[in-house]
Amino acid sequence: MNEVNVIGHLINGEMVNDDVRTQAVFNPATGAAEKKVALASKQTVEQAISAAQTAFPAWRNTPAIKRARVMFRFKELLEQHADTICRLIGEEHGKISHDAAGELQRGIENVEYACGAPELLKGEHSKNVGPNIDCWSEFQPLGVVAGITPFNFPAMVPMWMFPLAIVCGNCFILKPSERDPSSTLYIAQLLKEAGLPDGVMNVVNGDKEAVDVLLSDERIKAVSFVGSTPIAEYIYATANANGKRCQALGGAKNHAIIMPDADMDNAVNQLLGAAFGSSGERCMALSVAVAVGDEAADALVEKMTEAMKNLSVGAHDKASNDFGPVITQAHKDKVEGYITSAQNQGATIVVDGRQPHVEGYENGFFVGATLIDGVTADMDSYVAEIFGPVLQVMRVKTMQEAMQLINDHEYGNGTCIFTRDGEAARYFSDNIQVGMVGINVPLPVPVAYHSFGGWKRSLFGDLHAYGPDGVRFYTKRKTITQRWPSSGVREGASFAFA
Amino acid sequence: MNEVNVIGHLINGEMVNDDVRTQAVFNPATGAAEKKVALASKQTVEQAISAAQTAFPAWRNTPAIKRARVMFRFKELLEQHADTICRLIGEEHGKISHDAAGELQRGIENVEYACGAPELLKGEHSKNVGPNIDCWSEFQPLGVVAGITPFNFPAMVPMWMFPLAIVCGNCFILKPSERDPSSTLYIAQLLKEAGLPDGVMNVVNGDKEAVDVLLSDERIKAVSFVGSTPIAEYIYATANANGKRCQALGGAKNHAIIMPDADMDNAVNQLLGAAFGSSGERCMALSVAVAVGDEAADALVEKMTEAMKNLSVGAHDKASNDFGPVITQAHKDKVEGYITSAQNQGATIVVDGRQPHVEGYENGFFVGATLIDGVTADMDSYVAEIFGPVLQVMRVKTMQEAMQLINDHEYGNGTCIFTRDGEAARYFSDNIQVGMVGINVPLPVPVAYHSFGGWKRSLFGDLHAYGPDGVRFYTKRKTITQRWPSSGVREGASFAFA
Amino acid sequence: MNEVNVIGHLINGEMVNDDVRTQAVFNPATGAAEKKVALASKQTVEQAISAAQTAFPAWRNTPAIKRARVMFRFKELLEQHADTICRLIGEEHGKISHDAAGELQRGIENVEYACGAPELLKGEHSKNVGPNIDCWSEFQPLGVVAGITPFNFPAMVPMWMFPLAIVCGNCFILKPSERDPSSTLYIAQLLKEAGLPDGVMNVVNGDKEAVDVLLSDERIKAVSFVGSTPIAEYIYATANANGKRCQALGGAKNHAIIMPDADMDNAVNQLLGAAFGSSGERCMALSVAVAVGDEAADALVEKMTEAMKNLSVGAHDKASNDFGPVITQAHKDKVEGYITSAQNQGATIVVDGRQPHVEGYENGFFVGATLIDGVTADMDSYVAEIFGPVLQVMRVKTMQEAMQLINDHEYGNGTCIFTRDGEAARYFSDNIQVGMVGINVPLPVPVAYHSFGGWKRSLFGDLHAYGPDGVRFYTKRKTITQRWPSSGVREGASFAFA
Amino acid sequence: MNEVNVIGHLINGEMVNDDVRTQAVFNPATGAAEKKVALASKQTVEQAISAAQTAFPAWRNTPAIKRARVMFRFKELLEQHADTICRLIGEEHGKISHDAAGELQRGIENVEYACGAPELLKGEHSKNVGPNIDCWSEFQPLGVVAGITPFNFPAMVPMWMFPLAIVCGNCFILKPSERDPSSTLYIAQLLKEAGLPDGVMNVVNGDKEAVDVLLSDERIKAVSFVGSTPIAEYIYATANANGKRCQALGGAKNHAIIMPDADMDNAVNQLLGAAFGSSGERCMALSVAVAVGDEAADALVEKMTEAMKNLSVGAHDKASNDFGPVITQAHKDKVEGYITSAQNQGATIVVDGRQPHVEGYENGFFVGATLIDGVTADMDSYVAEIFGPVLQVMRVKTMQEAMQLINDHEYGNGTCIFTRDGEAARYFSDNIQVGMVGINVPLPVPVAYHSFGGWKRSLFGDLHAYGPDGVRFYTKRKTITQRWPSSGVREGASFAFA
Repeated sequence: MNEVNVIGHLINGEMVNDDVRTQAVFNPATGAAEKKVALASKQTVEQAISAAQTAFPAWRNTPAIKRARVMFRFKELLEQHADTICRLIGEEHGKISHDAAGELQRGIENVEYACGAPELLKGEHSKNVGPNIDCWSEFQPLGVVAGITPFNFPAMVPMWMFPLAIVCGNCFILKPSERDPSSTLYIAQLLKEAGLPDGVMNVVNGDKEAVDVLLSDERIKAVSFVGSTPIAEYIYATANANGKRCQALGGAKNHAIIMPDADMDNAVNQLLGAAFGSSGERCMALSVAVAVGDEAADALVEKMTEAMKNLSVGAHDKASNDFGPVITQAHKDKVEGYITSAQNQGATIVVDGRQPHVEGYENGFFVGATLIDGVTADMDSYVAEIFGPVLQVMRVKTMQEAMQLINDHEYGNGTCIFTRDGEAARYFSDNIQVGMVGINVPLPVPVAYHSFGGWKRSLFGDLHAYGPDGVRFYTKRKTITQRWPSSGVREGASFAFA
Repeated sequence: MNEVNVIGHLINGEMVNDDVRTQAVFNPATGAAEKKVALASKQTVEQAISAAQTAFPAWRNTPAIKRARVMFRFKELLEQHADTICRLIGEEHGKISHDAAGELQRGIENVEYACGAPELLKGEHSKNVGPNIDCWSEFQPLGVVAGITPFNFPAMVPMWMFPLAIVCGNCFILKPSERDPSSTLYIAQLLKEAGLPDGVMNVVNGDKEAVDVLLSDERIKAVSFVGSTPIAEYIYATANANGKRCQALGGAKNHAIIMPDADMDNAVNQLLGAAFGSSGERCMALSVAVAVGDEAADALVEKMTEAMKNLSVGAHDKASNDFGPVITQAHKDKVEGYITSAQNQGATIVVDGRQPHVEGYENGFFVGATLIDGVTADMDSYVAEIFGPVLQVMRVKTMQEAMQLINDHEYGNGTCIFTRDGEAARYFSDNIQVGMVGINVPLPVPVAYHSFGGWKRSLFGDLHAYGPDGVRFYTKRKTITQRWPSSGVREGASFAFA
Repeated sequence: MNEVNVIGHLINGEMVNDDVRTQAVFNPATGAAEKKVALASKQTVEQAISAAQTAFPAWRNTPAIKRARVMFRFKELLEQHADTICRLIGEEHGKISHDAAGELQRGIENVEYACGAPELLKGEHSKNVGPNIDCWSEFQPLGVVAGITPFNFPAMVPMWMFPLAIVCGNCFILKPSERDPSSTLYIAQLLKEAGLPDGVMNVVNGDKEAVDVLLSDERIKAVSFVGSTPIAEYIYATANANGKRCQALGGAKNHAIIMPDADMDNAVNQLLGAAFGSSGERCMALSVAVAVGDEAADALVEKMTEAMKNLSVGAHDKASNDFGPVITQAHKDKVEGYITSAQNQGATIVVDGRQPHVEGYENGFFVGATLIDGVTADMDSYVAEIFGPVLQVMRVKTMQEAMQLINDHEYGNGTCIFTRDGEAARYFSDNIQVGMVGINVPLPVPVAYHSFGGWKRSLFGDLHAYGPDGVRFYTKRKTITQRWPSSGVREGASFAFA
Repeated sequence: MNEVNVIGHLINGEMVNDDVRTQAVFNPATGAAEKKVALASKQTVEQAISAAQTAFPAWRNTPAIKRARVMFRFKELLEQHADTICRLIGEEHGKISHDAAGELQRGIENVEYACGAPELLKGEHSKNVGPNIDCWSEFQPLGVVAGITPFNFPAMVPMWMFPLAIVCGNCFILKPSERDPSSTLYIAQLLKEAGLPDGVMNVVNGDKEAVDVLLSDERIKAVSFVGSTPIAEYIYATANANGKRCQALGGAKNHAIIMPDADMDNAVNQLLGAAFGSSGERCMALSVAVAVGDEAADALVEKMTEAMKNLSVGAHDKASNDFGPVITQAHKDKVEGYITSAQNQGATIVVDGRQPHVEGYENGFFVGATLIDGVTADMDSYVAEIFGPVLQVMRVKTMQEAMQLINDHEYGNGTCIFTRDGEAARYFSDNIQVGMVGINVPLPVPVAYHSFGGWKRSLFGDLHAYGPDGVRFYTKRKTITQRWPSSGVREGASFAFA
């Protein structure tokens, strides 16, 4: 494996690779370990932090509109190099090209939002809070901040973080997933071409050693994290204990309620993409359909079964495929294990995606689209986040029962209702204990100018990711109260000696 | 003159030129009429309005982010074609290339602001204004709106208007100045390349005939105007009488107060550009310096006289020139007439810019930089807006006296104070009857994410131009109050027959 | 009639009555002219303006929180004196006590909103718009502003205006309706008790002579008007021509669409109050019900007819009455004339309220609740605003046809749809050319923290009344750009001689 | 001591006192333990939480304007009962009546801000985020939240928390300081009279046992804390580890820079109140004056020494006293110990307030106003927060040196500069690492409509206290994305069978 490309780090505007430790990077469609990624030592991470620290004073003082103009140029470059980025995503994550393009587009939307920095950073100004006393707020950058991101959106999730953090005047250290770092690194390099000063953006690849430096070094002022709930909880607790601001996004179990009055063809069509797109490896994947009444349930299962016949799983570079492999062999085993456990615990495997045959990719980590009916709240497959192309159907008698299921689950990321009825939709969105709610929208990921965040154990922290909350997260409020004592300069008498 | 290029109109995405009437377009540096511009008939303007009307329904329904993306692309194109635009400005307006570049940049900043449309168009949402009643506001586009713009900023002033109007979902008819229409038209054509659907942006050249159609046709919902106060007043009254929304920006007489504690070198340096840049043909030109105390006045006149020696007036394509000709021979005569009248009424012409010799451009409309001392409030040169490279110095004993002068003037566009003293600055900005105030900033043109507007007879209308007020001007508020009656769909009992 | 109470003016904190001309004030339930109101001469109005002008400088400089505290106290007083206010409304307007209490409550809500002045008046602050340059906006009061208000809401409509105008730092001249001025004056007097300095709030009674002073005196900076469309148009044009800011609210013709899926009992119940409450003398009265499909129409007419049997018309002081007389004998004649014209033009008078007998009030100006079916768009009763207790039913085949009717009407104040369907509601609210939209809410008057305003010929001006738009209307934007030259004070070297 | 009044808890609208454990409450002016306070057991606290939990669903669904009206009434009651509240503060805290009145007024300002709830809780609404897709945010209450507050502002600091928390729809558990709980309890009882439903506001007195229940019970969703930094850090870490939102405000060391150009009389006058008011027991007390240049330092010390001669320390009920005792004998010993240590470490005690004689209050916990010159950064009295009436003077050569001192201190709560120079003020406010900055304002406590928060180890958490950040802290964001599938109800064809 000695000829293999070793993926390094981006520090102070240069690609760096001095680390001893490496880890294999697989192509999940072929199952082959085609590349290696360097795993940053403590020193490497500290070097990145130092570069960021050095770049901070000048970057902080750069007018917001000039910082924004780097983002305008960055957007252009991302669009120009979209094909390369999508290919890199495909090779390491396995995502089909159209899906990678969608991911990238969602990332770019955050860059577009960041272009509005001068508007977003406005403070509030109050004249005469007392006689001749004014008061106003400024939102100043934090300093050096870090992001730790997961494998499933190597382009988008980092772009939830660094464009906004940077445009607010911070310097950034990104530690992307070590499973598919190439697209992330490629994107980060475009920032330099867009005119970003060296050191403002840095990428370190690594594992827990790197993470722990980011969580403990006192020069890091804030940490944004997206990943699983146990890790999110650890990151949040550790960062807070070390005096850092933190927002940590964790796992999910997203339910759709199918009401009896739903437009069923529309619902099935929407669910297809929401459940199986990106192999279900999305924190907003719709993995549970709760049908209200058996009539709705039967129709759903029948139409869904039919629709799933047209789905094809395969390699990223064939655009007609609907979704690709899961990320590792271990993950494939886990997903298939959950399907088996559901079967063992009494559910019905209506469409079975285990061990699919993908011609020419016999060693790939593929799982086919799977539909399970008769799932109940006590099954392992219901309790856990499967993170695979598996849609589970539950049957309840009333909408209230469906809502109770959702409210009882430990996660509260996204949810959706399919109905035509205004009152049902309003009651649902008001009372459901979930942060992101869709009404006939199965993947209610807020657009970039709103904010992303789940409730309950899906997010640790006060502020949601990106959008208005993102701006608030990456800045600290300073409040200034000003009074000028009466002035000889202004009063006429003083000019005799002026 | 039969070989001369005739400049037409941009209607529904095509250049059109069917009009009989034309008018000469001069190169003010040479004095030659090198081009002609078509003057739109009523039919031509109505054709443009029809095109806009037709394009409106689809454009209105295009998501704001997609409208914004046209502006992202438009910004790129403006930057790519900056040299051409600046050359066109220079040839017809006479502005030196660096000044034209500055103007263009200011225009682009409004495009950048427009890119934030999704953020800017957010309405306010209130849950439970009563039991289970929600209320929210939407800001909907007006329909077809028009802009009428002056010769002095052929690139910038139109861009105060149409990017924001368009991104808010309106369709636009622009009538630029007939003196220098080419850069405006060139810019408008870039919008098509940027992806704007045909008919959303239209440009008609013309004179009062065209203007009167825009003011009377009932399909035009709003008119933005920048020009002189008498015309602004006419436009505002007529548009309002015809049921249109209108904002009309007029003339100015911008004063700087020079306090005894001012950093005089800094003040002189700032005033130089603010008074003579663009030959003083700016509605924010700083044309009166009010010195508080003779000591300050003497120092100002002395240092300014010295500094003015290095100023050079000349043609647009020589970058070392500081400013160019004024727009017409008639305007040159008028500006020089005001200088002469000041002299006749008792002021001192310290530096005399009348009849300058510009080698090789003997027929150009040049006026040199002029400094007049001892100006008083009763002089004609003080009362009127000269709109030429003339700085007049007034001498007062106190800051209060200086402020009274400013507050008594009919205009209230911009003003400035030079001081180091926090109290003087705060008192000035609080009490001066002027809409845009500079503290040691002689041209306090608000950045694009704030709004531009004078007080008193410098602006007719409630809302200022561009920025947040611009968004409000180009949209109408709709308020929706919603309650859903209790629903059988939601309640369990109904599912028996669902 | 010489013993009759003559109602005067409130000027500079005192009740004043020097005017020669007076006009009778009727009790519309008895038909008797029990009081007279003074009609202000030019001098009287100018006296009020002078008082306001004098009070302005100190009031403008009073911190917003202190101005707000007058409103906090004013709210308490309004609540304490609610019974008196409602009685005064009843005696001169005829409104039943519960309806007057509702009006007062709506007025108080605007006072509550005004209590938030410190929040509402915040400007926007931008740090580093350029290197070391800051920019912010302040919203300064206009000076002396005026309100001209109609008879139908003598308490509420004035409170749409003056609490917000005053809390923003303006001084106010109110000219209420000369038909029912007592409650308005009583309310204004409470402001003094609440701690408002004399001269900040003034009330002049009068007719066109007074109005024309308010429209022409140059010390008046803005005029708010609510009344009929022809007068609104005159006020708007005149005020604008005289350099004043103006918002003028005019007439209405508010339609409800009854969809086939509507909850008909709920709709009928809602329409009852919306059509007949306050005798239909509301600019938001729901006067046209457009039923989609004959089935819905038949059900509507049948249920409405039944429900109307329980309505009782009578004097204000009997709480069991549903609504009272109309304002004058002439208005009674006009309303009944429209009913007759509908009959003559082919409509069916289902419930006929003409010439009702009200025991003990035989000379009162009563019209009973009237239901007319089969109304078409060409009937006089459809074209005009009747302003009486008359509900007209139109029958159409499709929702699109119903919407077209509404969009074709010259007014665009309020409208409503009754449906359970989310899509129908959303399509309606998006595309209807009306400023205030209800979804199953028949009187979609926005709550005080949103803004009130119709479209088309229902409102002249850019900004709606009260709420956020009201704040913007009563303030002018000032934008300050600030840079401090480098300072010897800060740099160490200078301290040798400090 | 068996006859002594035992202060209980307010739970579910009733005063409750079943606890076995109690603690003495002293009158610090007399040194006598005149009352006892109950210390809540785990069961007592859980009872309060249960009451709050039960009250939550109805309170959450109460429209914001109705919740706000409780606050309007609460404000009236606080003003009516101000004397009683101030007396209770005086008896247990020792604060002079005028100082207590100031504290109460500051608390009331937060109630006034809370009255604006309908405005403050508005979400953002975006139309057409995609074709026919809308998106909006709602800010929903958290549930049951807790506040833990210090002895030094028994009225104000609780009112930083509960009015806003409650008006946002939460239910509240307050644990005030056990040293002076009576005014806090009295205030809380007024809420019931103001119309607050039982259970929405609860007060439990207690010590660590009570606190630990609040930090661990999973029904508590958020904790606000104000106190010392070590406790703040513990509270923050524990609350976070238990899945709660937390903001914890800690200690301070607030410096004023005295520039050579300062108006020294003004500065001394301001410092007098800022340093010694409330015996220096304020987290915003100005305890260090850093004079730039010896000339400024000498003038400061001389004028301050002179001014301090007029200060009198004594009991709360004599209005001519300037400040009262410190809170306990132990605290008196600690404060005097710091003075002694400064002396021992080389500073000069210019005015010595140790062991003052207060006639008739020989056992009171008094410390007189103390001025220490020549303090350096290594002295114990500089490093620690003394929390007593002690002003320390430091001497530096440049402003930069002064700023470095401040930036190096572990706390970053408040700071101030005295200067007339605009540039110095701007540089200072921009670059100082402190959250609340005064320019010629020594106690830059933000007004209630801005937010309160220090930087560095003065505050743990992302969001500041009260004001806009307070609203964000007490609510969670929910984002709803809505699309309605095309509807048979709207389309004409469907009406055949309607």
